[in-house]
Formats: sequence, structure tokens, C-alpha cells
Amino acid sequence: MDTQDIARPRLSEEDWLAAAYEVLTDSGVEAVKVMPLAKRLGVSRTSFYWHFKDREELLEAMVRRWEERNTGNLVARSEAYAESIAEAMFNLFDCWIDPGLFDARLDLAIRNWARNDSSLQERLDLADSQREQAMTKMFIRFGYPQADALIRARAMIYTQIGYISMQVHESTEYRISLMPGWIKVFTGTSPEQRELDRFLARHR
Amino acid sequence: MDTQDIARPRLSEEDWLAAAYEVLTDSGVEAVKVMPLAKRLGVSRTSFYWHFKDREELLEAMVRRWEERNTGNLVARSEAYAESIAEAMFNLFDCWIDPGLFDARLDLAIRNWARNDSSLQERLDLADSQREQAMTKMFIRFGYPQADALIRARAMIYTQIGYISMQVHESTEYRISLMPGWIKVFTGTSPEQRELDRFLARHR
Repeated sequence: MDTQDIARPRLSEEDWLAAAYEVLTDSGVEAVKVMPLAKRLGVSRTSFYWHFKDREELLEAMVRRWEERNTGNLVARSEAYAESIAEAMFNLFDCWIDPGLFDARLDLAIRNWARNDSSLQERLDLADSQREQAMTKMFIRFGYPQADALIRARAMIYTQIGYISMQVHESTEYRISLMPGWIKVFTGTSPEQRELDRFLARHR
Repeated sequence: MDTQDIARPRLSEEDWLAAAYEVLTDSGVEAVKVMPLAKRLGVSRTSFYWHFKDREELLEAMVRRWEERNTGNLVARSEAYAESIAEAMFNLFDCWIDPGLFDARLDLAIRNWARNDSSLQERLDLADSQREQAMTKMFIRFGYPQADALIRARAMIYTQIGYISMQVHESTEYRISLMPGWIKVFTGTSPEQRELDRFLARHR
């Protein structure tokens, strides 16, 4: 037996995280346990401890991934270059259709998990307030008064979370077709055709 | 021992429903069971069967109560007399601040329960579509084009459900103070002072 083989992990950290993601989003955090994950991946649990000190460290990696991807991208897209509020909205809407920018399943799973985990709830509250601040600033940047900007930011956040938690099923095409209407509600103005075209060109 | 006393229920149907409501909204539907409820109420479970054939009948009564109160009132308030879209919105907002008209805790509990109960999920989908239709019609009644009315109705529904599922904590006073701003986002117009006054007078 080659000791090199024993020492070298057969699975990457990413494989464990991907398996944990599936279990977390399907069955909730209680189901994310080392032995069942190892069984699912068809390996002994020794491989797990090559990458993570314990279950807590795996869960922490998952939460960090959620913070970086979902909140990180919502904030970054709110701050992205835009010539008008409609263009800024389309920047943000990238997160509504690209799971690589915003993972709705993970957001819902984190919210369910936080109900029974007060320290996660604190991080969730922080994330929600970062999102709210970034979107409020986006509206202020385009001349909306502070109080109005705050309500518009909240309308977008609650709408997104409501949509996710109601598990609405719509095709991406249909969702995109409604976006000029959503922009009208959230901003009070309609996008110009060239602004829509620029957005569509990104998602072809 | 007086047989009359044995036959006469010591608790009303309402007492059982109230206890079941507390358990459902705190701990989810799995926790709603006859024996623990009887224990909680300090009676034998015999009393339960005076009012309900079985657990299923109790759960059905709870779902019917939710349908009548939450969806029933949202639809009724959408159809109530109004002179303008702002007045119609204030009619609807009654449901956002009066738990007697719309019970947010119960709505959230029903949504969590429906995730593991496909027949309840069907009733929830029906309720959501009744709410959407009623609000869409409300906007159409005040001259909004069909497609625009639908998006505005959805914005309101997703916002409400997002707000509930994020378990936002705000005082009623603060929530009321934001309502003219919400009306501006949802309708594109601001309410007049007399419309706000009429609403405030109802909630004094």
C-alpha cells in the first residue's frame, strides 16, 4: 500500500462543499453531517478531516460562501457603473437571473437555518442591512431623496426575498420580459430601449 | 358524579384552536398533536374529541380560518370602495397593521407547513392567485394597464411575504409613517393629506 495515496485526498474541498450544499438546500442544516455526506460521496469520513477540522468548519465555509456570493454581488452590482437609474437597476437584475451572482436556493436555506441559530441570524441581519444600504445609496446616487431611496431599496429586497420564499416558478425568458415593468415600479421611470438592449446582450 | 358534567365540554372549540395556533406558529405543524395540546390545556384528551373527529379535522379548521381571514380580507379590502388608487391602497394596508384582518404569523406558518404537504401547497397556490387577481383588478379599476397592474400586484404580494418571512421588527407607528412612501412606490402617485387622514382616523 502506497502511503502517498492515503495522504492525498481523493476529493477536493469543493466536492465536500458541493455535497453539503445539496443537503443544506434540500433538507436543512440538521441533515448536514459528516457521516451521511461521506456515504453520499462514497468515501470514508477520513477524507473529510483532510479538508475541514470539523462539521463547524464546513458550515462556516458555507456561510462565508453565501456572504461573498449573495451579499457581495448584490452590493457590487449596486455600485457598478451606470448612466441612469434604469441602467443601475439592470446591473442589479443580473443577480436575479444569474445563479452564479446570487444563489436564491442558498439564500432561502440560510434564512431557514438562521431561525434556529442566533449567531447566524446576526450575520443575516448584517447582510440584509448591507444590501439595504447599498441599494439605498444607488437610488440616492441618481437623485432620489433619502427617505424615498430607503423605501425603494426595501421594496426591492422584500420583493426578492418574497419571490424566493414563495418559490415562484418562472422561466428566465418570462422573468426578463417583466423586467422593464419591475424597473418602472421600483424607480418610477421606464428604461430606454438601448438600456434594455445592453442588458439583453449580456444575457444572450 | 354528574354525567352531565362529563358530557359537557370544559373547553370550547376556540380554546383548542387557539392552543393549536400557538403551537403551529411557534413550532410547526409536526408539533400540533392531540396529547401535547391536552397537556398544555390541562385537560384529558377526551375533551378534544368532543369538538373534533381527529387531528386532521383540527388542522383543516386551522387552514380554513387562514383562508377566510388572510386571503378573504386581502380580497375584500382590495374590492372595498375607494375614490382613488391611494385610498384603495390604504384600504389594503389595513391588512398590514391589523392582525384581525391579516395574521402574518399564521401566513408564515402555513407557508412553512405547505413545503411538506402538497395538498396544502395547492390551496396556498390558489390563495396566492386569488390575492394576485384581486390586487391586479384593483389597479385596473383605477386605469392601470393590465400588464402594469399585474406587476404592481406582485410587487405588493412579494413585498408582504418577504417582509413577513424576514420577520422584520417595526413598531406600528413606524410602519404607518412609511405608508405614503410605499404608496408612491406601488402606485406611482402620492396620497393626498385627506386620504392619509382618513386612514389614520381608522387606526387611532
